[in-house]
Amino acid sequence: MAGEFELIERLRQATRQPREDVRLDIGDDAAVLAMPPGHELVAALDTMVEGTHFLPGTAPDALGWKLLATNLSDLAAMGAQPAWAMLGLTLPRADAAWIDGFARGFAQLAARYRLALVGGDTTGGPLAMSVAIHGFVPAGAAITRHGAQVGDVVFVTGTLGDGAAGLSCARALRQDAHAQLLLERMRRPTPRVEAGLALRGVAHACIDVSDGLVQDLGHICAASGVGAELDAAALPLSPALCASFDDAAARRFALAGGDDYELCFCVPAACADSVPVLLAECGGATRIGRIVAGTGVRVRDTDGAWLKPARLGWDHFAP
Amino acid sequence: MAGEFELIERLRQATRQPREDVRLDIGDDAAVLAMPPGHELVAALDTMVEGTHFLPGTAPDALGWKLLATNLSDLAAMGAQPAWAMLGLTLPRADAAWIDGFARGFAQLAARYRLALVGGDTTGGPLAMSVAIHGFVPAGAAITRHGAQVGDVVFVTGTLGDGAAGLSCARALRQDAHAQLLLERMRRPTPRVEAGLALRGVAHACIDVSDGLVQDLGHICAASGVGAELDAAALPLSPALCASFDDAAARRFALAGGDDYELCFCVPAACADSVPVLLAECGGATRIGRIVAGTGVRVRDTDGAWLKPARLGWDHFAP
Repeated sequence: MAGEFELIERLRQATRQPREDVRLDIGDDAAVLAMPPGHELVAALDTMVEGTHFLPGTAPDALGWKLLATNLSDLAAMGAQPAWAMLGLTLPRADAAWIDGFARGFAQLAARYRLALVGGDTTGGPLAMSVAIHGFVPAGAAITRHGAQVGDVVFVTGTLGDGAAGLSCARALRQDAHAQLLLERMRRPTPRVEAGLALRGVAHACIDVSDGLVQDLGHICAASGVGAELDAAALPLSPALCASFDDAAARRFALAGGDDYELCFCVPAACADSVPVLLAECGGATRIGRIVAGTGVRVRDTDGAWLKPARLGWDHFAP
Repeated sequence: MAGEFELIERLRQATRQPREDVRLDIGDDAAVLAMPPGHELVAALDTMVEGTHFLPGTAPDALGWKLLATNLSDLAAMGAQPAWAMLGLTLPRADAAWIDGFARGFAQLAARYRLALVGGDTTGGPLAMSVAIHGFVPAGAAITRHGAQVGDVVFVTGTLGDGAAGLSCARALRQDAHAQLLLERMRRPTPRVEAGLALRGVAHACIDVSDGLVQDLGHICAASGVGAELDAAALPLSPALCASFDDAAARRFALAGGDDYELCFCVPAACADSVPVLLAECGGATRIGRIVAGTGVRVRDTDGAWLKPARLGWDHFAP
């Protein structure tokens, strides 16, 4: 049975990233970190709890990946360059094999962005984990939720609905190749970090789609004092999603399913044509609607009528 | 039943601190924060879990205070000026009264240091909470664990042993006035932020006493490549501790009990006389030993013999 200090050391070894801006990392009371001059710090914290965010028995490397992916996705939505993370890990047992798997998944994604694990805490209790993540933007360059303007075009990166469809496949015990692809998208989402960086100075507003497109775009609308209209026919759907569900179900996943971690963003109409080119190398982007005067998000269904999605998202405390 | 967004808004309102360096706080994908030029960021993350770190039924305002106090104590040990925190809160139920109590305790301590709550996450699950805390030091001025030198004098702020004695009183259901004082020290420890700031440029090394004096000073010794000798007779003990336990038990709590959140630090012998004066306004400081060549921490008992404390601290995964 590994003790607390051994667990921390295992994580430290597995996730080490040489960064000159890390003056002091794991092993003191706190990390000491140097910011690049002229930049602002962008910081977020997310928690994942067994039974709420993932099923008991989920592979630890998938958890390590996904925990970091959801946090990187928050930085991506701000247009921030990832730099450092701190990890709070609560484990029922000091299980070295579990830690090694978790660290492997975490380190795989961390290495892609030269993200350094600089601190944290391991403790005993019901399985749960928090990451505090930190990145930079040039001062004033962060992309927020409150800058959307009437006339902006609404885009989304990648494809929508795969995460929620993957969860549905898992619950139905579907094992076919398409279901496997959807499951993989749920378990190992790709944070759109490069897309977020490319959108600095271009997008008026941005959010990552974690709770469902309509709900998340609704946050942009509320923060910006505008409304939005989406075209259901324009939603980008993956081949695996279309092969596994009928058209109405696929669009429902795309509109209201969570766990996509794509970026939904608003750009001035004059820039709209350049966006797909700009993001061609980082997941692509699809025009799905526009910002209008008013409040809230309306969706025009494929038959041209306004849709009222019955399920608009996800509230962690909802029954 | 309050929803997630209402809970976050309650916390935000209760803990709001106006700070010019907070460019964007709760309500976007991440916070945007401006560092003062010429400074380094000091960051730590701590987790508290019901059943591991506190008893079921602990008052929420005490939890809010203590969670923040343990994190502020990490900043204090580095000599950092507190600035911002992010909170991850996992709750079995969306209980508005609980949140209000928790926010009250958190905000009481946050206000003392103008600490702003800038982000976080609330979710459903077994009761647990993490704080990521951030502060500043002038570049290069952080006090670490690895700077202790042979010949340094070892000091500690305040008094030792009250936290662990308070827990012992709680378990024994002791209700007398002394026990109440000890319990209050366990529930609402005072982070030694001002002392840490005063020790910049003075202390060679510093740590906060969270796991027990011998274990925590042992971390300084291991990081610095030195040993330490402590005088049990010199340990600062509170009147409440001395009135509640016999001398041997009181010194055992002071040496090996956790939850004190005092600072243990090492200063060059030439500065030792000035330290009690320097810290007179921030908890005081007592000379308790010296740094020697070698490894590990030895304790000279009140009878002059070397003591081997049977219980050297606290490992969260120990049986």
